[in-house]
Amino acid sequence: MQLTLHAYWRSSASFRVRIALALKGLDYARVSHDLRTGAQRDPAYLALNPLGLVPALVVEQNGARHVLTQSVAILEWLDEVVPAPALYPADPFARADARALVAMIAADVQPLQNPRVLKRLRDEHGATMLASDDWARHWISLGLDAAEVLLARHSGRYAMGDAPGAVDCVLVPQCYNAERFGMDLARWPRLQAVVGAARQHPAIIAASPENQPDADA
Amino acid sequence: MQLTLHAYWRSSASFRVRIALALKGLDYARVSHDLRTGAQRDPAYLALNPLGLVPALVVEQNGARHVLTQSVAILEWLDEVVPAPALYPADPFARADARALVAMIAADVQPLQNPRVLKRLRDEHGATMLASDDWARHWISLGLDAAEVLLARHSGRYAMGDAPGAVDCVLVPQCYNAERFGMDLARWPRLQAVVGAARQHPAIIAASPENQPDADA
Repeated sequence: MQLTLHAYWRSSASFRVRIALALKGLDYARVSHDLRTGAQRDPAYLALNPLGLVPALVVEQNGARHVLTQSVAILEWLDEVVPAPALYPADPFARADARALVAMIAADVQPLQNPRVLKRLRDEHGATMLASDDWARHWISLGLDAAEVLLARHSGRYAMGDAPGAVDCVLVPQCYNAERFGMDLARWPRLQAVVGAARQHPAIIAASPENQPDADA
Repeated sequence: MQLTLHAYWRSSASFRVRIALALKGLDYARVSHDLRTGAQRDPAYLALNPLGLVPALVVEQNGARHVLTQSVAILEWLDEVVPAPALYPADPFARADARALVAMIAADVQPLQNPRVLKRLRDEHGATMLASDDWARHWISLGLDAAEVLLARHSGRYAMGDAPGAVDCVLVPQCYNAERFGMDLARWPRLQAVVGAARQHPAIIAASPENQPDADA
């Protein structure tokens, strides 16, 4: 199985998939698409992902080629085809809690503070950079407030116990974004603790934006 | 297993879960939370879902009580505990494609046109109702354009072949929203065809907003 990840170092959805690939111990080729220049909307990339968002994971296996998109779908696929170490817990209710945390960040926080959304807020609705940053912080705050409550159910050293998994794959990149918007994680002590632990994990260090070949010097 | 669905008739995330429950043939009690009056932010409901969004599914089984949130996580849980009829295909790549379509709508479209987001656009950024409706249509258009391309891979009578599943659970409510914003599904012929078929399925008719007990007369 040959994997090629189409991504951008600073994209938090790309960061999620890099963490998952690193946790699974999988090697992959990399293609970088510079979101600042709109490279994700080049026709060649749109043929991979018609929504024009990173990441996309190209899987070549037995002479066939599959293109996977949407970071959360990629995490689920990885956990099905490479079961160990598991990204999701085994118990169905715990799996549901993990997926709820993943969806809360991946659906109700990150898309609202995505650069394309903030840009539209400025370009079409006259928001200043300060106002669009406030918009981002508003939705991040609501989501992390709720995550802090839900983390109480299962968190140990990591978000869902004593090994990192899918929830860590989304929380770490979301906290990276929160800090880029000047937010202090100390507001969410449990979140801060699990993300602090995750940031010391070798797979997460390897997957971090600043350690990618396409990162700005 | 006793199920109680906390929902609102017009909420598209609630509609997704109602479709899934109906496809699985599961009965459930209903609690309605009127989003127009902010009932989803009552402390009693926040104890169920700290993010203050519907739906939440309360599961009582063997003397234990579990609260599930996030519609996509609920769909996954339902498919694990009640496997037939399946909401997701069996093949891992087809499952990944289904999950990508689900995530595309559930993460990159619906959260951007959720009433709480449109309200903030008006209240905090001075958008008129017309401008906030344009914002909603913009993100719906991008998402449905991409969905139209992805549907070419698997669609038959329904989105992923000849039985309705998780993709239909999200596409039908998203198209309901698109039409509320005055959009014509004829722009997306394949989408229009599969959603048209889905709307004739008894489970989807039963789950439709206008057929709920809490629907406006």
